[in-house]
Amino acid sequence: MKVIGVTRDDDGPQLLERERPSPDPGEALVRTLRVGVDGTDHEVLNGSHGGFPDGADHMVLGHEAVGVVEEPNGTGLEAGQVVAPTVRRKPDGETNEYFRRGEPDMAPDGEYTERGIVGDHGFMAEYFTSPADFLVPVPESVAEYGFLVEPLSITEKANEHAYATREPFDWRPESACVLGNGSLGLLTLWMLEQEYDRTYCVGRRDRPDPTVDIIDEIGGTYVDSRETPVDELPEAHEAMDYIYEATGFAPHAFQTVKALDQNGVGVLLGIPEPWEFEVDGGSLHNEIVLHNKCLIGTVNSHVSHFEDAVETLQELPDWLLDDLVTTVTDPEHVEAAFEDGDDQIKAVVEFDSL
Amino acid sequence: MKVIGVTRDDDGPQLLERERPSPDPGEALVRTLRVGVDGTDHEVLNGSHGGFPDGADHMVLGHEAVGVVEEPNGTGLEAGQVVAPTVRRKPDGETNEYFRRGEPDMAPDGEYTERGIVGDHGFMAEYFTSPADFLVPVPESVAEYGFLVEPLSITEKANEHAYATREPFDWRPESACVLGNGSLGLLTLWMLEQEYDRTYCVGRRDRPDPTVDIIDEIGGTYVDSRETPVDELPEAHEAMDYIYEATGFAPHAFQTVKALDQNGVGVLLGIPEPWEFEVDGGSLHNEIVLHNKCLIGTVNSHVSHFEDAVETLQELPDWLLDDLVTTVTDPEHVEAAFEDGDDQIKAVVEFDSL
Repeated sequence: MKVIGVTRDDDGPQLLERERPSPDPGEALVRTLRVGVDGTDHEVLNGSHGGFPDGADHMVLGHEAVGVVEEPNGTGLEAGQVVAPTVRRKPDGETNEYFRRGEPDMAPDGEYTERGIVGDHGFMAEYFTSPADFLVPVPESVAEYGFLVEPLSITEKANEHAYATREPFDWRPESACVLGNGSLGLLTLWMLEQEYDRTYCVGRRDRPDPTVDIIDEIGGTYVDSRETPVDELPEAHEAMDYIYEATGFAPHAFQTVKALDQNGVGVLLGIPEPWEFEVDGGSLHNEIVLHNKCLIGTVNSHVSHFEDAVETLQELPDWLLDDLVTTVTDPEHVEAAFEDGDDQIKAVVEFDSL
Repeated sequence: MKVIGVTRDDDGPQLLERERPSPDPGEALVRTLRVGVDGTDHEVLNGSHGGFPDGADHMVLGHEAVGVVEEPNGTGLEAGQVVAPTVRRKPDGETNEYFRRGEPDMAPDGEYTERGIVGDHGFMAEYFTSPADFLVPVPESVAEYGFLVEPLSITEKANEHAYATREPFDWRPESACVLGNGSLGLLTLWMLEQEYDRTYCVGRRDRPDPTVDIIDEIGGTYVDSRETPVDELPEAHEAMDYIYEATGFAPHAFQTVKALDQNGVGVLLGIPEPWEFEVDGGSLHNEIVLHNKCLIGTVNSHVSHFEDAVETLQELPDWLLDDLVTTVTDPEHVEAAFEDGDDQIKAVVEFDSL
């Protein structure tokens, strides 16, 4: 079968031929429909994040997938069921307390692998196998966009964790800001626009730009961070009740503290490299305390977040899905999915259709 | 009546003579028993925090008080009831949404005053008045130490807010560390020792030292930050599930991120001055995200935290209360309560007894 992988000799995606996998007991065989590409895939390619499976000379890419159950293999799934696979797996199949509790997203380093990212082959293949417990049903009506369940689940988890921090009091947020206008930022902006009176999205692009057009259409206010740095949001627009950081630009974590309104929460999702710089640590510390602020990080997601994401996916308007997906390519032309121009928002590799 | 105040001309506590206040409708008159002194009082004296009531040439100090209802004034309280007053009050008596909800601790600047700190006279006086809603009953058996209800309430709120951040998953913390060995740090260490398998307390004192003796007696491990900086706790001891910062030393806020174990939470309570320094912001950001960490600030507390604190006060062992309170002085010798030597842990001004 065809797979898209990365080898130790090359940092581009490559079309490789591999044997179709056979499901072990408890696993189903899934025929892949589509696999999305995101920033993490680029980091895996350039070697700045993740790592190959032990001893492997290549790793199959891809962690945002949707497929169809081909062989249920006695797992209770039905052939033809559309599913989205979660990402974290037991290392060498050995369970631990985090997997037992259904919270692999909270497992420490070494107690998980991540398909297509850390120590495990991904889903960019004509077929993949997965324990049935990690295959989340997706309605056929949204199968075409089922590869968005994984990124949406990241925001479901981030929102759940961020909002929990405000549970001890009667929080009444009105304004939310997304830092980053990539596909995850735009999807999140749409989600927040359903809940908040006013939303903002920070990027660094000149109009006309397709992501800025989407921000406009969603109803958010576009903020160009070259003109308005994140910590000047309160003066230029307003202090934010909620900030969702999806840039991986380390100063944003610190500027978020100043951009938040009293009692606000900032959730961090970016994964920057080490970078030393100067901050007014005294004022940041003081500000967090005197105004009851919170900074929380979240990574990955688990099954219930995937289930919530399936609900959200069904609510997303068609125009947003159409505008968001800028490239659909077959495995033979996979390079198109990894091009990174300003016109690229979300690229997808299509292996098959329903 | 005798009051202890600070005037605009002097940064030391002064014994002043003022008229006994009369309770307005809804207020009771309270005869003061004891008022504790903490770091905030020192900051008020030196002008680095808080501010005088509008137009006043002095401010009565003190926000950690216990007293006895002298005149219930039709409020439903009973004469002779021991009470601890909360700290935040409606500015000019004008209510707002935060006071309506019973959450004045979440009110923004300008929508509250703080007795003895910001814009309102404190409790270091033979008598004070207070709305009855802000007077929390204290059992007679612990009246002598009722001035600790306010500082304990600060930790009750901090713990409530910090633990809420870990609610979305099955958090099983084992280790906790208090940064700071002042009276609040020591009280908190005792509270955490009741819940955690292992506790630590960070200070910068040479043995023999009375605070280190208390840490030993509680059962915590003393960590000298001159030998083991906070961010080296994981190597020297262990990564911490919970960190409670009560130093106001700004680098501690950042070192906390590294000292936390995966999925850990750090609560910040200190109020440092502006201070620019270099941090590895990329690694901090990365670490918060990849290990699901959280930093949360909390300030002040409200009635339910005072009620929880009254419960905690009744559980504190006698030896700890005895060792903690190093100075009990009358108003005529108030300077003794503001001396700040290594032998001073908690000082109290005693106006009267039951």
